Amino acid sequence: MEPLFNRMAVIGVGLIGGSLALDCKKNGLVRTIAGYGRTEENLKTAAALGVIDEYHATIEKAVRGADLVLLAGPIGSYPAAVREMLPFLSKNAIVTDVGSVKGRVVADLAPLLGKHHFVPAHPIAGREKSGVGAAVAGLFKGARCILTPVPATDRASLEKVKKLWEAVGSLVTILDPGEHDFVMGMVSHLPHVIAYAMVNTVLEEAGKREGLVSYAGGGFRDFTRIGASSPEMWRDICLSNREILLEQIALFEKTLSGLREMIRKEDGQGLISAFEKSRALREKLK
Amino acid sequence: MEPLFNRMAVIGVGLIGGSLALDCKKNGLVRTIAGYGRTEENLKTAAALGVIDEYHATIEKAVRGADLVLLAGPIGSYPAAVREMLPFLSKNAIVTDVGSVKGRVVADLAPLLGKHHFVPAHPIAGREKSGVGAAVAGLFKGARCILTPVPATDRASLEKVKKLWEAVGSLVTILDPGEHDFVMGMVSHLPHVIAYAMVNTVLEEAGKREGLVSYAGGGFRDFTRIGASSPEMWRDICLSNREILLEQIALFEKTLSGLREMIRKEDGQGLISAFEKSRALREKLK
Repeated sequence: MEPLFNRMAVIGVGLIGGSLALDCKKNGLVRTIAGYGRTEENLKTAAALGVIDEYHATIEKAVRGADLVLLAGPIGSYPAAVREMLPFLSKNAIVTDVGSVKGRVVADLAPLLGKHHFVPAHPIAGREKSGVGAAVAGLFKGARCILTPVPATDRASLEKVKKLWEAVGSLVTILDPGEHDFVMGMVSHLPHVIAYAMVNTVLEEAGKREGLVSYAGGGFRDFTRIGASSPEMWRDICLSNREILLEQIALFEKTLSGLREMIRKEDGQGLISAFEKSRALREKLK
Repeated sequence: MEPLFNRMAVIGVGLIGGSLALDCKKNGLVRTIAGYGRTEENLKTAAALGVIDEYHATIEKAVRGADLVLLAGPIGSYPAAVREMLPFLSKNAIVTDVGSVKGRVVADLAPLLGKHHFVPAHPIAGREKSGVGAAVAGLFKGARCILTPVPATDRASLEKVKKLWEAVGSLVTILDPGEHDFVMGMVSHLPHVIAYAMVNTVLEEAGKREGLVSYAGGGFRDFTRIGASSPEMWRDICLSNREILLEQIALFEKTLSGLREMIRKEDGQGLISAFEKSRALREKLK
C-alpha cells in the first residue's frame, strides 16, 4: 500500500499510540513516525522497541513537517499540547486523537484548531496492561473505531483518517460527538462506575467480616476485572463525560430501585419479566 | 473407598443433583442412587445418562430405605417434598440439600425434620447450562461447599456429609445459616441484581437508540453473562434472601451515591482513591 502519510507525530506514546504506530509501520501506512511525551525514558523505550523512528525533546520538533498528528496521551493533556504545537503545525496537517470522551475533546480543541484539519477519533481497544511496553501490532483488528467529525472537519481529512483506521483492521463508524458520549457512557463508563461501586461495597463489608473476599466466586469476580484499569484514566473519563454520566447513573438508580421494590413487595412475576430481558439480550449478542 | 451411603435418593435430578450423583457413582461413595422429580421425561434422561440407577413415580418409593436424601430441586419445592417423604423416611436417614439460600431452608425445614438428621448444604458450583443434560462428573472439584448446621444437627451426620463433599473434591466450610446468606448475598446475589439492573438500564435506552447494543464491548459485556442464568432460580434466590438482600442493595446504593457525588462535585482525588481500592482487591484475588 502507498503510504497514507509521510510523517506522523505521536504525542503520548503509550499502549494506544504505540500500538497504532506499530501497525502503521507494519502496513507501510506512514513513512516516518516521530514521538513526543512527558518522559524521555518512555520515549527511549518506544524507540528501542521499534515503535517510533525518532523522538524529540520539544513538541515543536516532533510536529514540524508532520502531516498527521496523533494526540494519544490523557485527554486532559490535549489543550496544552495543541496550544504548544499550533505555531509549528503544517497547513496540511491533520490533527486526530484517541480520547474515550469526545464532547469534551471537541469543546476543548475545535476552537483552538479552527484553521486546521481536525478529525476526533476513538478506537475502542485496550488491554489490561498500559504503557508502551504493552503496545502490540494488531490491537485494533476487528475493533470499532468511532470518528466524531466537527462541523469544520473537511471530507478529505475524514476519509484519510478513516482509511488509516480501516487499514489497521478497525470497523469505522461515524457518530456525532454527543451521541458517541451517550453510547460509550451506557456501554462502558456507566458499567465501570457500577462495577467500582459493587467492588467497594464488598470491600466496605470485608473490613468488618474476615474471609468475606475468599468467597468471591462467579457473580462478584466479573466485577473485579475493572481493578486492572487505571484509576487516573477512569477519573478523567468520569469527569470528562460528567453530565451524561450523571444522567445515566440516575437511569441506573431508577432501574435498580424498580428491582428493589419488586423484591420488597415479593413481586415474583415482575422479577421474572425483568430477568428474562437480560436473557434475550444475551442471545442477541451471541 | 468403602461407600459412605447405601442408598441415596435425589429429589430433583438437575445439573447439581445429577453432577453429584455422577461423582458419587464414579467414586463409589454410594451403592444405589434413586431419582425422583416432577417430570418422568427428565428422570428417563437421567437414567439413560447413567446418572441414577432407578427412578420412581412417588417420593415414597424413592426415599424408602435411603440413608441419604438429597433435596436438589428449587428451594421453594423443599417443604412440600419433605412433608411428603416424612412418613417414609428411615430413622437413620440424613436429609441434606443444595439450596443457594440457607436461612429460609432452615426456617422451612428444621421444624419439619425435628426428629431426623438434617444437614443443610450449599455447593457453590454451576454451569451456564442447567438440567440433567448438563450434569458432569468433577463439577465440584476445587469448589467451595458450605454446610450450615442447625442446633439439632448431630456431629456424626455433619461429618458424614462433609466427607461426601470432600470426596468429590469440594473445599468444605461450616457457617451459620445467616452468615452464609450475608456472605453469598454480597458476593453473588447482590452482584446478580446489580448486573440485571445494568443490563436492563441499557435495554431501556436501546429501545430509543438503534444500534446502541452493537457497541457493547469491554465494560458492558461482562454484565450480560447473567443472561445465561435461570430467571426462576434468581427470583427464588432474591425472594428467599429478601431481607439481607434489601439491606445490601441499600449499602450498594449508598456507595454508588458516594461516587455520584464525587463526579458531581468533580472530586478527582476522591475518585482516584475509590478506584484504587478496586485495584488492591484485584491484586489480592490473583
